[in-house]
Amino acid sequence: MCWAYTSRIIRHKLAREGKQLDSPEMALAKMMDVGFKSVAVQSLHTIPGEEYHDLYRNAKRFARMAGGLYRVRIGDPLLAKNEDLIRVTEAIIRHLPKQRKKNEAVVLMGHGTEHAANAFYPAMAYYLQRRDPNIFVGTVEGAPTIKDIKAALLAKKIKKVYLMPFMSVAGDHARNDMAGDEKDSWKSILTLAGITCVPILKGMASYDDIADIWVDHLKTIYTQKYHKDKR
Amino acid sequence: MCWAYTSRIIRHKLAREGKQLDSPEMALAKMMDVGFKSVAVQSLHTIPGEEYHDLYRNAKRFARMAGGLYRVRIGDPLLAKNEDLIRVTEAIIRHLPKQRKKNEAVVLMGHGTEHAANAFYPAMAYYLQRRDPNIFVGTVEGAPTIKDIKAALLAKKIKKVYLMPFMSVAGDHARNDMAGDEKDSWKSILTLAGITCVPILKGMASYDDIADIWVDHLKTIYTQKYHKDKR
Amino acid sequence: MCWAYTSRIIRHKLAREGKQLDSPEMALAKMMDVGFKSVAVQSLHTIPGEEYHDLYRNAKRFARMAGGLYRVRIGDPLLAKNEDLIRVTEAIIRHLPKQRKKNEAVVLMGHGTEHAANAFYPAMAYYLQRRDPNIFVGTVEGAPTIKDIKAALLAKKIKKVYLMPFMSVAGDHARNDMAGDEKDSWKSILTLAGITCVPILKGMASYDDIADIWVDHLKTIYTQKYHKDKR
Amino acid sequence: MCWAYTSRIIRHKLAREGKQLDSPEMALAKMMDVGFKSVAVQSLHTIPGEEYHDLYRNAKRFARMAGGLYRVRIGDPLLAKNEDLIRVTEAIIRHLPKQRKKNEAVVLMGHGTEHAANAFYPAMAYYLQRRDPNIFVGTVEGAPTIKDIKAALLAKKIKKVYLMPFMSVAGDHARNDMAGDEKDSWKSILTLAGITCVPILKGMASYDDIADIWVDHLKTIYTQKYHKDKR
Repeated sequence: MCWAYTSRIIRHKLAREGKQLDSPEMALAKMMDVGFKSVAVQSLHTIPGEEYHDLYRNAKRFARMAGGLYRVRIGDPLLAKNEDLIRVTEAIIRHLPKQRKKNEAVVLMGHGTEHAANAFYPAMAYYLQRRDPNIFVGTVEGAPTIKDIKAALLAKKIKKVYLMPFMSVAGDHARNDMAGDEKDSWKSILTLAGITCVPILKGMASYDDIADIWVDHLKTIYTQKYHKDKR
Repeated sequence: MCWAYTSRIIRHKLAREGKQLDSPEMALAKMMDVGFKSVAVQSLHTIPGEEYHDLYRNAKRFARMAGGLYRVRIGDPLLAKNEDLIRVTEAIIRHLPKQRKKNEAVVLMGHGTEHAANAFYPAMAYYLQRRDPNIFVGTVEGAPTIKDIKAALLAKKIKKVYLMPFMSVAGDHARNDMAGDEKDSWKSILTLAGITCVPILKGMASYDDIADIWVDHLKTIYTQKYHKDKR
Repeated sequence: MCWAYTSRIIRHKLAREGKQLDSPEMALAKMMDVGFKSVAVQSLHTIPGEEYHDLYRNAKRFARMAGGLYRVRIGDPLLAKNEDLIRVTEAIIRHLPKQRKKNEAVVLMGHGTEHAANAFYPAMAYYLQRRDPNIFVGTVEGAPTIKDIKAALLAKKIKKVYLMPFMSVAGDHARNDMAGDEKDSWKSILTLAGITCVPILKGMASYDDIADIWVDHLKTIYTQKYHKDKR
Repeated sequence: MCWAYTSRIIRHKLAREGKQLDSPEMALAKMMDVGFKSVAVQSLHTIPGEEYHDLYRNAKRFARMAGGLYRVRIGDPLLAKNEDLIRVTEAIIRHLPKQRKKNEAVVLMGHGTEHAANAFYPAMAYYLQRRDPNIFVGTVEGAPTIKDIKAALLAKKIKKVYLMPFMSVAGDHARNDMAGDEKDSWKSILTLAGITCVPILKGMASYDDIADIWVDHLKTIYTQKYHKDKR
């Protein structure tokens, strides 16, 4: 079992703090050297976007190397199959702030991307709103945007929102872009529009029933029978 | 300029009628023989699902062949970027049946898939319902299912629906699974639930402003500057 | 069973004469369309040089295509394993011109290449000279050159040589570069050096025991058990 | 600049002695992490056999990874182009034992392989014998074999031979298979046949003019202009 970090920025930042972390490629090259033949790589991404595909592509390169890994499987990110959307929807419904009243909204902040996988954010919104029409999903770098969300909140005359990061951890984006005091943070934008904001700084991976989905994706590839065509 | 059919079933069926059609691989091998160096392949798929990825994967194989095509680009299917979802939403809104009243629903039938790209159907539903809450998107083989749609229609006490195929052409699925008289067709299921059905047998590619999206995707790859990393 | 021509020049020349020939890629794409899953491709090259590797590389691309060939094996050219060098040596010894006297030389003309596989020509020369020191191997585009051969013949005071193409067919190179009347043909060069030349216009594939080697290479891949790593 | 060892056996042996050495894959993964974009990998193999091709294949995998090395070139082994055969021939001629008399033989021991690249040994023999008919090239695991060499030495009534490793270093094969006292070593086999043996335990990389060839192969790829097709 071994942890690797896909983000070079994070790796080099932690290296300066004395923590040496492997990139996925370094981890795979080491496993190959040790003599492993079959490796299961679990992505901790939220959607199958560019970063997930980069990990997939690079890890798969190792499955074709001479004298090396014979089988490299990559687990789905949090959201891939339709059942993942359903499971995440149900988990989020369970973790809505206890104190929230029905006419108060919940706004989830996803990362967003120009990649086609951005479709998972409106898809997520669709399933959440089927359960509760006052739950919204916006993104920092994709769509829907905070502008879209603000317009929808105002149209529904929402007075108070709970802001939750729809990311594995409550990191930089959650603390600054979502809950920061800068004037372009979501909190600032909505506050300025007359909406009271309550940020909740807890990442998706902190909820056991959501973390379970990633773990189940690992179990799926780990127990998968070998099929010549899908190694 | 050359047409190729990805579906072996369709190719062999048309061959029996005397029409010889190339598979994408045959078309690409011929172009390679003729001496083409750069080829733009436009997918006519609706979503970037398994079939799109198969086409992508196979076509890309030709970009690495000796003495052959140097550059093979594959255009996005109808839905990929977020702006595609928006454009298709606006086009569908424009093409809603004239005679439809506000309290009557429109149900779009997509193909659906177990592939992650199924997320485009709920994403599409999200954008359409932002414009008109009585528009629904269901799928034959993925989610949402007709069962989901029926429940939603009944919950909203809808009495009449217009059924539209959300596929490039109004083929087998539209005529049979959507509008057929078999008891498991969508028309039969909804009629049995007391909802009047009006099927519209017109595929998405028949609407000029939707066909334009595919054409624009071709233009995008066709005019793309060569970039060493993205050939 | 299907024939394909790797050379675009030959294909297009024959096309002008009304004979439509497939490139290997077209043949493979058609086999894929028909529904073949496993294909054995037999190279008719003499050495594993650039052309052989191009064929290998392109044919292998088809083994990874979606919905296509599952297994594509490519047979060795005439010369690959050491036993091929031995078999060809013995066959050539059997086919030396009957009328040739011991102090007359035999000069084989190979194609030659800048590719590393040019080593097969001096290797061939080594094995032939172990059997008969008056057999020489030269090449048109690689090494040894006709200049090398001429020097060796003069050093050994050879008065007469039999020129034989060391190519599958006695085509352009044999008729012109070897046996032509142009002043830079091998015949002209050696004649000018006072050596009588007797060209034999018969390609290697015309000798049954040499053709058998290619056929055996096809048998080898055809009967090979499937091994997950070597498809 | 970084050294990597292709042999897992050697790496793990040295690891037990406290020397941590990288495999080529680990070295490349690290370079990718550091941010290198273009890497030149120089093989120290003697022939382009299976090990060279494994290195080539694995290193090339890194040239297609996301966010990684953009260009990975692999230098030729000692022998590839015909000019390499010529240069090595001339260098060996220069380094023949000073004390050797004309009627004494020199036997070079190559590794040998079942790979097609074994042809480089008879090719090497061809070029050496053109310069000096009493130089022989045999191999441990390929052809020509020591049995072939012994027969040739006896046929020429050679009484004394100098044994030289035709490998980059005088390692296990040179000390044991060539010069060892075991009854199946080359020294024992030839001694038993009445031939006096003088082993010279010096690898090819110890001769400056031979080491220069590897260095020149590195220079070639290092100074190569970028060509889109040959990265």
